[in-house]
Amino acid sequence: MSQRVYLFDTTLRDGEQSPGASLNMGEKIQIARQLAKLKVDIIEAGFPIASPGDFEAVSAIAREVKGVTVAGLCRTHFEDIDRAWEAVRFAEQARIHTFISTSDIHLEHQLRLTREQVFEAAVAAVKRAKSYTADVEFSTMDASRSDLDFLCRVLEAVIAAGATVVNIPDTVGYAVPEEWGRFISTIFNKVNGIEKVILSVHCHNDLGLAVANSLAAVANGARQVEGTINGIGERAGNAALEEVVMTFRTRKDYFDYYTNVNTEEIYRTSRLVSSLTGMKVQANKAVVGKNAFAHESGIHQDGVIKERTTYEIMNPAMVGISKSNLVLGKLSGRNAFRQRLGGLGYDLTAEELKNAFAFFKKLADKKKDITDEDLEAIIDEEIRRIPPTYVLEYLHISSGTTIVPTATVRLEREGKLLEEAACGNGPVDAICKAVDKITGLNCTLVNWGINAIGGGKDALGDVTLRITMDGQKIYMGRGISTDILDASAKAYVNAVNKLVWDNRPVEKYSAVKQIT
Amino acid sequence: MSQRVYLFDTTLRDGEQSPGASLNMGEKIQIARQLAKLKVDIIEAGFPIASPGDFEAVSAIAREVKGVTVAGLCRTHFEDIDRAWEAVRFAEQARIHTFISTSDIHLEHQLRLTREQVFEAAVAAVKRAKSYTADVEFSTMDASRSDLDFLCRVLEAVIAAGATVVNIPDTVGYAVPEEWGRFISTIFNKVNGIEKVILSVHCHNDLGLAVANSLAAVANGARQVEGTINGIGERAGNAALEEVVMTFRTRKDYFDYYTNVNTEEIYRTSRLVSSLTGMKVQANKAVVGKNAFAHESGIHQDGVIKERTTYEIMNPAMVGISKSNLVLGKLSGRNAFRQRLGGLGYDLTAEELKNAFAFFKKLADKKKDITDEDLEAIIDEEIRRIPPTYVLEYLHISSGTTIVPTATVRLEREGKLLEEAACGNGPVDAICKAVDKITGLNCTLVNWGINAIGGGKDALGDVTLRITMDGQKIYMGRGISTDILDASAKAYVNAVNKLVWDNRPVEKYSAVKQIT
Repeated sequence: MSQRVYLFDTTLRDGEQSPGASLNMGEKIQIARQLAKLKVDIIEAGFPIASPGDFEAVSAIAREVKGVTVAGLCRTHFEDIDRAWEAVRFAEQARIHTFISTSDIHLEHQLRLTREQVFEAAVAAVKRAKSYTADVEFSTMDASRSDLDFLCRVLEAVIAAGATVVNIPDTVGYAVPEEWGRFISTIFNKVNGIEKVILSVHCHNDLGLAVANSLAAVANGARQVEGTINGIGERAGNAALEEVVMTFRTRKDYFDYYTNVNTEEIYRTSRLVSSLTGMKVQANKAVVGKNAFAHESGIHQDGVIKERTTYEIMNPAMVGISKSNLVLGKLSGRNAFRQRLGGLGYDLTAEELKNAFAFFKKLADKKKDITDEDLEAIIDEEIRRIPPTYVLEYLHISSGTTIVPTATVRLEREGKLLEEAACGNGPVDAICKAVDKITGLNCTLVNWGINAIGGGKDALGDVTLRITMDGQKIYMGRGISTDILDASAKAYVNAVNKLVWDNRPVEKYSAVKQIT
Repeated sequence: MSQRVYLFDTTLRDGEQSPGASLNMGEKIQIARQLAKLKVDIIEAGFPIASPGDFEAVSAIAREVKGVTVAGLCRTHFEDIDRAWEAVRFAEQARIHTFISTSDIHLEHQLRLTREQVFEAAVAAVKRAKSYTADVEFSTMDASRSDLDFLCRVLEAVIAAGATVVNIPDTVGYAVPEEWGRFISTIFNKVNGIEKVILSVHCHNDLGLAVANSLAAVANGARQVEGTINGIGERAGNAALEEVVMTFRTRKDYFDYYTNVNTEEIYRTSRLVSSLTGMKVQANKAVVGKNAFAHESGIHQDGVIKERTTYEIMNPAMVGISKSNLVLGKLSGRNAFRQRLGGLGYDLTAEELKNAFAFFKKLADKKKDITDEDLEAIIDEEIRRIPPTYVLEYLHISSGTTIVPTATVRLEREGKLLEEAACGNGPVDAICKAVDKITGLNCTLVNWGINAIGGGKDALGDVTLRITMDGQKIYMGRGISTDILDASAKAYVNAVNKLVWDNRPVEKYSAVKQIT
């Protein structure tokens, strides 16, 4: 009889720890909603004590996203646990996830605690969490480099104290599959009370083995796998949940496990996470990469034409990659537009639909075929909007080999038109400088990237850039246009608006409701 | 006693089969030289019968790249084998690698051959290859879905016929580690004569398990691993060799295997392959991703500052990621420039150095700090040059919100200046159209991408684009400038020059010498 494996998605916590991938609250809620649609079992929404922003986001997700357990991460400090509970308490199903390191290398060099102190902190933390909620997960950080006897002693004690899930992280991505399988098997066979709780693993990908290690753990007793969409996360990231899910599904002849995931939402979720975090997925990424289902060599193409399964073990439709060639153009009506958006998983209000349709019509005048990717770009841009302080009114660029690149920019702020011109190293630099002159802000461009959405000369350019003022907090801006300079200007203004919004002199908590 | 595992690099064959990643001969030779520096054991340089270009590239690599075995791939057809031998025969160590499918699904739907016919073709092919060279590798395509008894029977026969390496491919990426380990173990224990040859595996990454499967195979008797740099290849690609190598090295406490690879060349090789194929490496890619050694969360940063090994299992220097902060600027002299290039692994002729230095000085006037990445961009661009038919002389762009994007372009061809202007959807489109008007060629832009090299507003823009005329053959162009439009124009002209060069009315073989 096939056994269920629970999926614990930490895209919004460990995933957001990817350098460069910070998300604002609206973006986190959007991802959480999509994860609920994907039907992961648990969403780790953040680390509430880490910052007020993290707290707000976890709290908003707990209140708004239904049909899924919402977890908040906390160290063993009581104030961490209390704060985590404050954040998740209104969830349909709330989980407190508390952790402490158990490896001697962490105890000695980082925590500067004895094993006994760690043991006591762990038990006390679980008891504290248990006083708030029945669903308590405990993680032994750096478990793969921990003394196995000590680790088992801690696990027994936290189970006795009320933990309902015990998670074994390979924090530094050190484990290899066979060894890790034996490690998990020892825990499963040795720890008293383990049969009453769910054994979980959290694998990192430093050696490229996170998914294989997760599978080895499941084969040896684990029934929860922690991971992220697209495998993002600290350093080389976490186990890519889409790979774990599709391995169980594709090889159900071999594995006697299943997950509750709606695999047809995988591709859409992957795209959303990639677009909002700015973490690109490489073309040769398993399951969700652009080439994952593309066949290049003549021999392979010949085979696939004769019989798909000769070179394809998964049907792309299974992960939600539509091969539909239906194309929207400027003659398409509002109904076809709404229907296509529905097929892409968007559920818009009447007002949002109206705005999106207007944008679509404008684009369709410039561009013959509007692809699904164009539509996603439009919608992500429209829905993600915060109230814009500045609106780009006019842009003029003069550039070339013998010309100093010059930008003239006009922005509107509260009905007033503000104009400036500036020179730069290139046209994008000139645009940034002209905008900075208007806003009076001195922003640093951290990075700038572009995705040509769709192919060909009239592809829609999707510029993503990141700016910072203080070197600490980074704001991402996106802009879409057939003209990359226009897209850059929009993206820069978008990022500046986020920065201005975030630094507005109003009370933080009341603002939450306005955004969400 | 630690045992050696041979590395068979197929970046230039399976890797080049990545959709969108075609390489010209100069680029292939550049990669092959770097692979030799990395000290892989075998370079599969191409599939000689597939096209005259493939033949030329394999042949040039066999002649020019020393200290490594050069293999050419071929089906079991005698003409394939003969052509492969023609291509590799002048290598220091030449290998013929012949293959045929052994799975019933391939036999029935694609090859339309009986098992007996396949068996005979395999034996005949190995005998034919053996008549040319002692080093013959035989692969049983789609082995993971083949009947194990039939597979073993074929392997015994090809070993008896003289194969010195037998390779077991998981062509469709269907295998999972434990099962694959048992599969390899059965072969290792059952096939007569297997102890006299090298058992090899070739794993695909459709389920994200290529590296784990390779490790499982080695643990069960395989002593050659096939893979690619950055894991590129058909669909989701192949086993990433850098991950295999670094797992053995990082976990030498666990694995009793070693490779001959100079790990300090890993990062440089990864960058070169990514840059020449245009296949971006995602930030969270293990070992070589931009974030692989970056720590984001406060807890992790705190740990690393106290003691690196708390959160880092590999030292970045081990894979050649220098943390050097030495910065070159406009006051730097030729010696510092040469030294830094040497440190990056470049070995330039006096002429090349002179040109590169001039380019560097020009750039240093516009940009304060010249990073290692800027240098690589400059050199890759300079060294990769083919004789340019067209040279960009002048560019003027007028663009903005209320302006029809217009480009004026002047190109030089054989001393003659040619001018045209054109409008477009955006400035890049306008540039392409203006160039097309001048050349009279009607090119289609397949894709366009940019890497901001280095960070900040004055990063160097590195535009990579691909064009095609017939929809079949694709030409990549790159252009570097602080101005993305200037970079786009250079890239487009660069691609057009490659297209023109490739379609020139001269004899192919003599041209080889001119390029290489």
